[in-house]
Amino acid sequence: MGKTVRVELGPRSYDVSIDAGAIEALGRTAAVIENVRGAVVIADSTVAGLYGRRAVESLRSAGLAVETIEFPPGEEYKTLATFARILDDLFSIKPEIDRNSLIVALGGGVTGDMAGLVAATALRGLRWLQCATTLLAAVDASVGGKTGVDHPSGKNLIGAFHQPSGVIIDVETLKTLPTNEIANGLAECVKHAVIRDPGLLDFIERNADALLECDAEAMTELIARNVGIKAAVVAADERETGQRAHLNFGHTIGHAIEAHVGYERIAHGQAVSLGMIAANHMAVARGLIGRDDAERILRVLGGLALPTKWKSLDGDRIWQIMQHDKKARGGKVRMVLPTRLGSVEIFDDIDPAAVRNAVESLNA
Amino acid sequence: MGKTVRVELGPRSYDVSIDAGAIEALGRTAAVIENVRGAVVIADSTVAGLYGRRAVESLRSAGLAVETIEFPPGEEYKTLATFARILDDLFSIKPEIDRNSLIVALGGGVTGDMAGLVAATALRGLRWLQCATTLLAAVDASVGGKTGVDHPSGKNLIGAFHQPSGVIIDVETLKTLPTNEIANGLAECVKHAVIRDPGLLDFIERNADALLECDAEAMTELIARNVGIKAAVVAADERETGQRAHLNFGHTIGHAIEAHVGYERIAHGQAVSLGMIAANHMAVARGLIGRDDAERILRVLGGLALPTKWKSLDGDRIWQIMQHDKKARGGKVRMVLPTRLGSVEIFDDIDPAAVRNAVESLNA
Repeated sequence: MGKTVRVELGPRSYDVSIDAGAIEALGRTAAVIENVRGAVVIADSTVAGLYGRRAVESLRSAGLAVETIEFPPGEEYKTLATFARILDDLFSIKPEIDRNSLIVALGGGVTGDMAGLVAATALRGLRWLQCATTLLAAVDASVGGKTGVDHPSGKNLIGAFHQPSGVIIDVETLKTLPTNEIANGLAECVKHAVIRDPGLLDFIERNADALLECDAEAMTELIARNVGIKAAVVAADERETGQRAHLNFGHTIGHAIEAHVGYERIAHGQAVSLGMIAANHMAVARGLIGRDDAERILRVLGGLALPTKWKSLDGDRIWQIMQHDKKARGGKVRMVLPTRLGSVEIFDDIDPAAVRNAVESLNA
Repeated sequence: MGKTVRVELGPRSYDVSIDAGAIEALGRTAAVIENVRGAVVIADSTVAGLYGRRAVESLRSAGLAVETIEFPPGEEYKTLATFARILDDLFSIKPEIDRNSLIVALGGGVTGDMAGLVAATALRGLRWLQCATTLLAAVDASVGGKTGVDHPSGKNLIGAFHQPSGVIIDVETLKTLPTNEIANGLAECVKHAVIRDPGLLDFIERNADALLECDAEAMTELIARNVGIKAAVVAADERETGQRAHLNFGHTIGHAIEAHVGYERIAHGQAVSLGMIAANHMAVARGLIGRDDAERILRVLGGLALPTKWKSLDGDRIWQIMQHDKKARGGKVRMVLPTRLGSVEIFDDIDPAAVRNAVESLNA
């Protein structure tokens, strides 16, 4: 049974549709967007090979002219150079694209970010649909309208806020994902539970095995609940000036661990798992939450095949990296810490020694 | 005496300040924008040489850290490649820029468009001020928040809507402009008069000589009135879905004339002057306006040193180019024609023969 979650953003509101086989509904979704006459599917070559034909056929059967633009897979291609090549392809399409052309981002986070930026800037803004094929894109990037590419100086430094006209998540596409990709998504789900919804933590705890096996029903429920949480946070703070920062829980130390360990050696979700455990350690030390809550979250993460320990983390080095993180630009390190299960606050009185202790408690 | 015009766009409202010596007020204007801690002035090397030092000193004297980024002058540098180089410079600034950094676009339309796109996309959106140093930028690009760069397939194909936090126009900077640059701006002023304000046409008619000499008082009045007209049009239609198209008066044929004659051989304002005369010819032929109104507008344009005739225009070729114009994408050629002085409507029943007759009536 499919589920639909509404992201409420006034005139920029849209639906996230989650279902097994949802990719077949892409054309139907596109065709009801006002005045859309043609679609351009943007995908990396791997995803284009897996799902490109089904997406194109669905769009064509809805009466749309469809073109496809491919780029090489991998975060290392999320650059201005790839963005420019996609635009070259886009503007060479005949007949020429116009304001009634629809961009369809088919893939994971990299594709959504980059195709979303293409949609945000081509002809000063085209409508777009996101068809998310990874769990991380489904529960995280599918809501919020953040688009962007990386720069040698940092991730996502060039981008825009550009809400899609709709998001489609076909839970069948998740079954082909490698374990690390599932872990990336599950870590964000635990994050949502800790910052907003203890009931979601119960659900994840009870359904860990079904989720790891990508059971369609469990996945549909999981994604719908997480999209709902993220949608509520984003609706309250579309431009990321306030409580949207709560979504950084586990990410301040997590990003620093990623940079420290090396992006090719640790998955984002693994680093976020460790980052959440470290943040919980700090929250326990400050008397914000009990040790039992922290231990329960750690057990849930472990039950999802996420790491709870790592080798040779250097607490001082992690602290240095945190000070250079984008979120710290222009000021102090700020961290999101839980105050009870389902609730977090932002703290800017972060003690380097507390960070060092928390990070070193992770050492295997 | 300076004038200030408010552009009303809800939470994105801002002031346009027009005055002799207004550039000295840049720092004061920047300093009152919430949380701004530093500024990055973006200018082409010509404008940086003329006004860069005064802009930087004004910003520094207001207590801001200031850096300058230069790029080569000329429309041919309004590209993704220049945009990427500006971003490279921006992200190499130490200490690193953050969301409290302000972009200052110092220059004409190319600079405003490109620096505005940098502001729209760096860190997913920075605040920016536009300090317009050409008459065209002052009366046209300073209002509306359009940013963008060109692509080999067409002008402004890559961009965003991103409203500035304020606009400063120093009428002293207009005095160094070549005649063609003044003509570019004056053509847009006549356009505004024809589409919205017969009184402005009277003002231009009476003050033609003072305007051609860049008299500070006449220029301040002219710019304030034109900013007011454009602001009202944009406020009613921020995303260009309706009446903002009225601003295309004279531009449908004008753009085609530019492409036909060659961008290096005719200034934009000259082409717009011819485009308005041709559109008026069509309006007279359809019985929309009287011949006397058309002749008066032609005389005003001639009195501003704008062309009213041109050599060897090919009406059929112009029509072909119009059909390929961006505004025609996905449909029929649409033209804005006057229905009386101060009022226009959009027509999509354009007869190629009427365009040919109108264009060929321009032949010297």
